[in-house]
Amino acid sequence: MGAVRLEPRAVARSEARTRHERAAASEGASPVTTSLSGFPELLPDQRAVELAVLDALRASFELHGFASVETRAAEPLDSLLRKGEIDKEVYVLRRLHAPEEEGDAGLGLHFDLTVPFARYVLDNAGHLEFPFRRYQIQKVWRGERPQEGRYREFTQADIDIVARDVLPFHHDVEVARVMAEALAGIGFLPPLRLQVNNRKLIEGFVLGVGASDATAVMRAIDRMDKVPAEVVAKQLVDDAGLTDGQAKLCLRLAEIRSADTSFVHRVRELGVRHELLEAGLAELAAVIDGCAGLSSERLTVEADLRIARGLDYYTGTVFETRMAGFEQLGSICSGGRYDSLASDGRTTYPGVGISLGVTRLLMPLLQRGTLSASRPVPSAVLVALPTEEDRVRCDELAQSLRRRGIATEVAASAAKYGRQIRYAERRGIPFVWFPGADGTHEVKDIRSGEQVTADPDSWTPPPTDLRPQVIVEGEQK
Amino acid sequence: MGAVRLEPRAVARSEARTRHERAAASEGASPVTTSLSGFPELLPDQRAVELAVLDALRASFELHGFASVETRAAEPLDSLLRKGEIDKEVYVLRRLHAPEEEGDAGLGLHFDLTVPFARYVLDNAGHLEFPFRRYQIQKVWRGERPQEGRYREFTQADIDIVARDVLPFHHDVEVARVMAEALAGIGFLPPLRLQVNNRKLIEGFVLGVGASDATAVMRAIDRMDKVPAEVVAKQLVDDAGLTDGQAKLCLRLAEIRSADTSFVHRVRELGVRHELLEAGLAELAAVIDGCAGLSSERLTVEADLRIARGLDYYTGTVFETRMAGFEQLGSICSGGRYDSLASDGRTTYPGVGISLGVTRLLMPLLQRGTLSASRPVPSAVLVALPTEEDRVRCDELAQSLRRRGIATEVAASAAKYGRQIRYAERRGIPFVWFPGADGTHEVKDIRSGEQVTADPDSWTPPPTDLRPQVIVEGEQK
Repeated sequence: MGAVRLEPRAVARSEARTRHERAAASEGASPVTTSLSGFPELLPDQRAVELAVLDALRASFELHGFASVETRAAEPLDSLLRKGEIDKEVYVLRRLHAPEEEGDAGLGLHFDLTVPFARYVLDNAGHLEFPFRRYQIQKVWRGERPQEGRYREFTQADIDIVARDVLPFHHDVEVARVMAEALAGIGFLPPLRLQVNNRKLIEGFVLGVGASDATAVMRAIDRMDKVPAEVVAKQLVDDAGLTDGQAKLCLRLAEIRSADTSFVHRVRELGVRHELLEAGLAELAAVIDGCAGLSSERLTVEADLRIARGLDYYTGTVFETRMAGFEQLGSICSGGRYDSLASDGRTTYPGVGISLGVTRLLMPLLQRGTLSASRPVPSAVLVALPTEEDRVRCDELAQSLRRRGIATEVAASAAKYGRQIRYAERRGIPFVWFPGADGTHEVKDIRSGEQVTADPDSWTPPPTDLRPQVIVEGEQK
Repeated sequence: MGAVRLEPRAVARSEARTRHERAAASEGASPVTTSLSGFPELLPDQRAVELAVLDALRASFELHGFASVETRAAEPLDSLLRKGEIDKEVYVLRRLHAPEEEGDAGLGLHFDLTVPFARYVLDNAGHLEFPFRRYQIQKVWRGERPQEGRYREFTQADIDIVARDVLPFHHDVEVARVMAEALAGIGFLPPLRLQVNNRKLIEGFVLGVGASDATAVMRAIDRMDKVPAEVVAKQLVDDAGLTDGQAKLCLRLAEIRSADTSFVHRVRELGVRHELLEAGLAELAAVIDGCAGLSSERLTVEADLRIARGLDYYTGTVFETRMAGFEQLGSICSGGRYDSLASDGRTTYPGVGISLGVTRLLMPLLQRGTLSASRPVPSAVLVALPTEEDRVRCDELAQSLRRRGIATEVAASAAKYGRQIRYAERRGIPFVWFPGADGTHEVKDIRSGEQVTADPDSWTPPPTDLRPQVIVEGEQK
């Protein structure tokens, strides 16, 4: 994890972190709750990490003019099942006491945010301005067999741009840039690789080598990360009907990747020519060019010609994303262009978008303790309580801190100060405020033990203590 | 709506608002999407209002030290059905292609956030610090017949404080204060009345008049807002077994309300004495006293002795909340104290909390156009595009604004400037940026028409234009 870098706001591990580790270690259990398989739940400090991620994503998306949309969790089953292979994973809804004749309500929980968004666009086309940029951060449900990276309930964060009739290609570059910037902006994730390809490029190449079933080729190439090249080659011959020579060319294509546009030259060296291939090369080069300058230690954008998204109905640009050290999770952020995201028969709505699997991304990092929060509570200050009679006065004092944006709680009981300090320690609250009887106040940093006089109308904690901070395992203060 | 007051951040209606009104009027339809009855969806500008509400709630809760928790949407049916009368409204989940023998998964969607939170506390008791303050903002589902204020899918915002074994009474005051402050802080809602009562007070009074079935009395009193006093009186006699004289006393009790502690005297005047009544009076007086100073034009906290929450298992303080002009919605924010929120047989976890029906509160205000947003997009600036060749330069310019927190989009096409300005107008984007070929820049406020030269590294819009603002119908600029 040496390459993970921290924003200045990340601080050293606190008492809470240590306590957390102790608890996890002593019970030999993952601190992520899974009392129902596939439905993970987070402890408050883990949720603070998730909130930091969701806040950063939202801020990035909104800075680029993407509007928030939420769709209902339930969709008519027939619209959910249109997408084909995924249908087996849908959860069907039934009202417990529905009359016998009503049967299933014909509703299922959405399994992604694309199908509901396409429906939303059709429902509301008259009220939307196109091109329409939206982000959508919601839970989705799939009845899959739970395993690492696969959950029955999980959060996705999608961005899409949808237009009426025509969506200019520069929006493909835009969604790549926005998601890349959003991911890089989170600041505490392992290095990410945003891999871009183009369906026209693959299809043009397949046609150029003299084959016809581009879909079968994409399905085979899609497995290159999972099975040896010989197996893919065999599948290309057996299922896609290629000759050995054609299969070899396709495999050489799929091995090409570059963080700049040098892939264009390498594809051309393979000697295959086709109009659609040229269109795909130009589009992919435009995305890679458009993302130049975004790459950093934290995030690389690259052309990767094995990316196919074989099972989805993309028609141009396709995206996948790998996280360093967590390649076994597969792609944590995928998407692409649909020439027809939605259609009502008269009007077609093309779209391009990317979907981030927030739960898939975060859960392994939380489960392994790679990420944690500096404290499980928002409170930066605990106001100590001299006696129960002082509660009103202490509440007022807390209010004066809150009015200036400092999250504050008042001690639950007027125990001895030592106990009140330990109460703060157990929660990772960095400061304890002691209200003096004579109107003088002192505030103690319980990490350093330093105690100073303070004015409730002006004292402010350091910015890094104002909110819980995300901590990366093994990072220095 | 004359009494509704606006925060300074609320601004006058914009183009977007006018457009929106026009669309709603011309189509004679509510702009809230309801293509599936009971599952409301919001247009982007309405969602901006909801986000403003959720952000304000979250900020208030966190300032008071409440930590965010989310629980899974699904709970085992047997734990959902424990709560009694509500069971008929549960949505049962079934995997579409579950093997025949698996049948229903035994899971249902949660219908509130209290049952799942109680389960979460038991699941994670070893990892939580008590007293534990949490807020939880999530969707819940009920298979009810849809009507105004009743939805099948809706958002709730709950705060609860839970302890192990003993939860001091001052936390009852705390949750009332926190929710009252959070609601008042939203700033653009109609006036709210937070009504507080105490089960001990009612039960003590019932016992004091010589009756025994306090539950039946509370169930009758609970209907006082819906049926005439005579009907309630009859129910008190017929169902609760009271004499006419006892019923009359109970009705007189239920008519008492006060925004200060004068209710104590008025109850005592009824001449009923009981130890439990005294305990309840003291607790209720403490809540009203503790909330003194919070009341404003926008929010009143008052003792209202008809509030009973008859169907829930509260054991002390109870809360309801009415919104002026929307009394037919019933309570939009309710809660109270449970002496046993959760129990694992060995340990009891008492709790006190309040649940705000965000959808119930907002949907009528959005549907009637009482609340809307100044624009449906986050963008404060549209960078105009001289020619398509300028896109990279314009993107860089937009990035320099975004880096300073100004949400910016670049025009979708290099149309004539007049068309680009209308593009901004239709979205309610207040500023259009014109990049000069010679490196000089001009920015136009399209509402006033004022156009000035501007530096992309320092120009900032007025704070009220930075984000979409919530607009209250009929309010002046």
